[in-house]
Amino acid sequence: MAATPEHKIHLSESEMPTTWYNIVADLPEPPPPPLHPGTLEPATPDDFAPLFPMALIEQEATTERYVEIPGEVLDIYRIWRPSPLFRATRLEQALGTPARIYYKYEGVSPAGSHKPNTSVPQAYYNHAEGITRLTTETGAGQWGSSLAYATAQYGMECEVWMVGASYRQKPYRRTMMQVWGADVHSSPSDRTEYGRSLLAEDPDHPGSLGIAISEAVEACVADPNARYALGSVLNHVLLHQTVIGEEALLQLAKVGETPDVLVGCTGGGSNFGGLAFPFLREKMAGKMNPTIRCVEPAACPTLTKGEYRYDFGDTAGMTPLMKMHTLGHGFVPEPIHAGGLRYHGMAPLVSHIYELGLAEAIAIPQRECFAGALQFARTEGIVPAPEPTHAIAAAIREALACKETGEEKVILTAMCGHGHLDLSAYEKYLGGEMVDFELSDDAIAAAMADVPVIA
Amino acid sequence: MAATPEHKIHLSESEMPTTWYNIVADLPEPPPPPLHPGTLEPATPDDFAPLFPMALIEQEATTERYVEIPGEVLDIYRIWRPSPLFRATRLEQALGTPARIYYKYEGVSPAGSHKPNTSVPQAYYNHAEGITRLTTETGAGQWGSSLAYATAQYGMECEVWMVGASYRQKPYRRTMMQVWGADVHSSPSDRTEYGRSLLAEDPDHPGSLGIAISEAVEACVADPNARYALGSVLNHVLLHQTVIGEEALLQLAKVGETPDVLVGCTGGGSNFGGLAFPFLREKMAGKMNPTIRCVEPAACPTLTKGEYRYDFGDTAGMTPLMKMHTLGHGFVPEPIHAGGLRYHGMAPLVSHIYELGLAEAIAIPQRECFAGALQFARTEGIVPAPEPTHAIAAAIREALACKETGEEKVILTAMCGHGHLDLSAYEKYLGGEMVDFELSDDAIAAAMADVPVIA
Repeated sequence: MAATPEHKIHLSESEMPTTWYNIVADLPEPPPPPLHPGTLEPATPDDFAPLFPMALIEQEATTERYVEIPGEVLDIYRIWRPSPLFRATRLEQALGTPARIYYKYEGVSPAGSHKPNTSVPQAYYNHAEGITRLTTETGAGQWGSSLAYATAQYGMECEVWMVGASYRQKPYRRTMMQVWGADVHSSPSDRTEYGRSLLAEDPDHPGSLGIAISEAVEACVADPNARYALGSVLNHVLLHQTVIGEEALLQLAKVGETPDVLVGCTGGGSNFGGLAFPFLREKMAGKMNPTIRCVEPAACPTLTKGEYRYDFGDTAGMTPLMKMHTLGHGFVPEPIHAGGLRYHGMAPLVSHIYELGLAEAIAIPQRECFAGALQFARTEGIVPAPEPTHAIAAAIREALACKETGEEKVILTAMCGHGHLDLSAYEKYLGGEMVDFELSDDAIAAAMADVPVIA
Repeated sequence: MAATPEHKIHLSESEMPTTWYNIVADLPEPPPPPLHPGTLEPATPDDFAPLFPMALIEQEATTERYVEIPGEVLDIYRIWRPSPLFRATRLEQALGTPARIYYKYEGVSPAGSHKPNTSVPQAYYNHAEGITRLTTETGAGQWGSSLAYATAQYGMECEVWMVGASYRQKPYRRTMMQVWGADVHSSPSDRTEYGRSLLAEDPDHPGSLGIAISEAVEACVADPNARYALGSVLNHVLLHQTVIGEEALLQLAKVGETPDVLVGCTGGGSNFGGLAFPFLREKMAGKMNPTIRCVEPAACPTLTKGEYRYDFGDTAGMTPLMKMHTLGHGFVPEPIHAGGLRYHGMAPLVSHIYELGLAEAIAIPQRECFAGALQFARTEGIVPAPEPTHAIAAAIREALACKETGEEKVILTAMCGHGHLDLSAYEKYLGGEMVDFELSDDAIAAAMADVPVIA
């Protein structure tokens, strides 16, 4: 099949998808519901009401196949969407592979990643329900900066609790949030009771993502005009991200291609789900038959080494229980550079399709990922964020296998963000200072011991 | 006139210009030639041969109206070109202006600025003549990273002398160059005789752009397989950048618009010339009549306060003499954040058209620029590099004037790069630590005293 002569496969703004795709409508069985941590009964909309606006609570549970994207959200999506689909011809040549590699590039968004695909609708729905302030947590800052950008579009306040160690070591993501008008606090902070209690014990407390979540939630429930926003894991987040896959489907169709293999990196699961779910719909409908592969870091192998259990979404155990692949909510991944993949659990929807056998998973250590990223940067030009280096490494593995077999497979992957604010990771790799982490079964077993046993 | 319903005005790759535009062919009189600093006679091709490949030396002096872009260069341009032209509708709304603001965005290139438009053809022509290594200098790293990217595309070596103070303070641009395979030295370095002589005097010498140029030139002339590359000022550099303006012309035509005002920031002049020259061609042909305005930093007001004189391009006085607006080759601009605009001179071609009355110029202090950049980031989403904040501030001035008069002017500007690696400048602005610099006439007079007097 002839490939396009164009390197970038374009969609016009008028061809942009106007609905998000809800894979729940097409699955052979529904995913297990979230449970209230006290009653262990399925959580009700009222349980979520202090944290999320009604529109998002409805999206979290909807069984409708398509959800219309509001016009006001499309107006903002158009600032960077449709995002380009690239044929990686120069990488293919460098690898000497007969495979054709395509990548959907989300680094063109204002924040440089796929996160604004959901931060914008989340801000929109909150704004529409009269909410004037959003609270959230952020680790290295990708999600916080995306939410700061989105709230700026609707004139809302945005308050971000940033893990203290990152706040002090990574001032640039913090500044990016402030450029967009957000109020950024080092966590633990003196703005919440929980934060003050921790600072009283240790004024130099380095913080953690779990603590930052607790502070953002505490600040949210204390203010009736505020709600809380989450950047991955939940159904409505993955729903919003399906705009990635819907566009990629249209773009590949323009050049007459269907993927044989789709690979995406998985942390919380939103980037992977966003690309993969529309292709899964086509696969379940018998229209194509791609192998769909999750790629996770060897240091945090949720799908490949975790258990499929009910567990908490946060470290402190405040959230509803979700059935997902987990390494235990107390599991603290080693400090790999792909901060966005350092999550103990997996989106319940991704876990569910994995259990159903609709996707497979592999884990790759970070040095192989950065080696692939360097080859990608030197051929395709784009410097990847640490998270998608995993997807690139997996695509390169597949392309090199094709070189052995001579197969002309079509490989599709997601380049979910650029690495302009992650160059310190490349500095370590180039300087020979990057290490791979061996994950012991004991560490997982220890963390799993705290996971509640649900009958 | 109705504006497009699309926020981004698209060109397909097949619509990309295939020639660069040489404004010399259309000017009412030719620009004064460069002079050999010893003989004061017009410099000959042989004078440039140790530094540049013959193809670029020919382009430097050509009077042909159009120069064909080689297919191998177009292949690489297609990685990010055509670049998008955006209608800044959200900024317009925030300003409440009846003006229509368009900006051509060059931050989509791998290095995040317009510089690869010339680094790629420069690497190509050198490679075609058998050159295997390019040397250059860089200040904050924009140019060095663009050349590193370009040489990676042709498998060439790239050696960059980076101003020592920046090398130590700004590791991320340095890492970006290394990701693309460049060899980066802190300047002064022990790799050149000149560098060693300076280090012998002061082992902690902070370096300067002038010193880094001297080292790159010394290393180049010592190796017959090496040539030197410059990122702005010269005719062939501006020629390559005209791809920006040619695309913008086609994009505006698609929505039936012609600019009433064109504003671009000027440091060495390549970004401004690249956007403006194709529009100047149309203006000289009587097809449109835009006001064309250069915007320079108040701390380095080359056009508005400099003299039109023959002067050296570098601080050490090693280059041919060029007739240009200059503040004196010994002038050291204050450390404003727009490092790319801290140049004592101006591209001879830009100086020439300014003298001919074909363009006007204004100077803006940096705090007004960053105020405009913040408003731009919060509405349009893109965080601008410090250099184009000047163009944005000028566009906002013009749009606010239209609000007063009710004029529906079409304003076109160049957003020549993103600010992801310049967030420390925003940190200073947001923290109230940014200052504007008053430039004294005495400082200019002192630097001008060293400028040679040519009869």
